[in-house]
Amino acid sequence: MQVLKDRIRRDGKVLPGNIVKVDSFLNHQLDPLLMREIGSEFHRRFSGEPVTRILTIESSGIAAALMTGLAFGVPVVFAKKHKSSNMSHSCYASPVYSFTKKISYEVSVSSEYLGITDHVLIIDDFLATGSAVKGLLDILRQSGASLAGIGIVIEKTFQDGGRDLREAGLHVESLAKIRAISDTEVLFNES
Amino acid sequence: MQVLKDRIRRDGKVLPGNIVKVDSFLNHQLDPLLMREIGSEFHRRFSGEPVTRILTIESSGIAAALMTGLAFGVPVVFAKKHKSSNMSHSCYASPVYSFTKKISYEVSVSSEYLGITDHVLIIDDFLATGSAVKGLLDILRQSGASLAGIGIVIEKTFQDGGRDLREAGLHVESLAKIRAISDTEVLFNES
Repeated sequence: MQVLKDRIRRDGKVLPGNIVKVDSFLNHQLDPLLMREIGSEFHRRFSGEPVTRILTIESSGIAAALMTGLAFGVPVVFAKKHKSSNMSHSCYASPVYSFTKKISYEVSVSSEYLGITDHVLIIDDFLATGSAVKGLLDILRQSGASLAGIGIVIEKTFQDGGRDLREAGLHVESLAKIRAISDTEVLFNES
Repeated sequence: MQVLKDRIRRDGKVLPGNIVKVDSFLNHQLDPLLMREIGSEFHRRFSGEPVTRILTIESSGIAAALMTGLAFGVPVVFAKKHKSSNMSHSCYASPVYSFTKKISYEVSVSSEYLGITDHVLIIDDFLATGSAVKGLLDILRQSGASLAGIGIVIEKTFQDGGRDLREAGLHVESLAKIRAISDTEVLFNES
C-alpha cells in the first residue's frame, strides 16, 4: 500500500534496536483518513471471505480494525489486556509475551462476542514475532470460530512471526512489509 | 441522540451498583456504523468550533474519537494509561482515579501531539464523576492548547462530573444522558 509506505518514510522515526516509531499516525496520534483507507484496503484484500466479525487487541489495533469493520459492515471486537490471569467460564483468554515491553500479559474476549458461527478477520497494527496474533488465534480456536485471515498494517519481515503464520497455511496480508531498518531509513520488501 | 438511547435500551445490561453495561456496542465489541453516526453527531454539535485535534483516552474512547476526527478531518490523539508515575519533559501527564476499577493511574500525551496552537475537542465514552475528563483538561492546560468542548457518548447525570464541568463554564455535549438506573431499566433525561 504505497500511501502507507510513503507515510512511514516521511513520518516514521528510526530508533535504535530495529524500531520504527509511527506514533504520529498509528500508535498514539491517529490519522482518521489514512485509517479509513487502510480499512478499505483490508476489505479489498479479503473481499472473497464472508467475514462476520473483526478481532483485534486494545489499544493500537482498534483504529484499523474499526475502519475495516466499517468497510465490511460487521462488528469489531477488541481483546482486552490484563496483567494478571483471570480466566473465567464466560471468556476466552490466552497469554501473550510482549518482546517490546518485555512483559507477559493475558488477552481475553467475552464468549458473548465470538462463537462457532463466526468467520473472523484478525487485524493488528504490527506483526514482528507474532506473539499477539498467536494469542488471538488461540482465542479463536477456543471459540470454535473460523479464520478468514490476518490483516496487518506493518509487518517486520526480518522477524519470524509472518513466516510462521504463512507456513501454517494462514492467509496473511500486510500493507507495508519492512525488510530492514538501517541507521537512518526504513527498507521495504518489493511486494 | 435517539438511535443511541434506543440501542442502550435494547442492548444495555443493567447490573447492580448503578452500572449499565454497553459492552456489546461501545466498550468491548464496537458497532462501526453506530460509531460513525456518533462521530457525525459530535461534528454537528461542535461545528462552530475550529477544531484542530481530537483528544481521548485509551481504549474505550478511541472508536468514538476516531469517527469524530474523520468527520472533522483532524488527527486524533489518545492519552495512554500507565500504572506508575513516569513523568518526562517530553510528555504531559495527569493522575486519574477510576471509581469503577478502584485504582489510580496516570494518563499521558506526548508533547509532540498537543501544543499552544491547538483547539481541542475532548471525546470520551462515559462521564460519571468526571475524573478522566479532568485529567485530560489538566493535560490540555499543560500544553497551552485551548478547549473547543467536551463530547461524551453516555453521561450519568446522577453523578457530579457533568455538573462540575458545566458550572466551570465548559461546553459539554452528551449524546445520551442517564438520570437513573432502576433494577431493570435505564431512565434518560428529557434532553
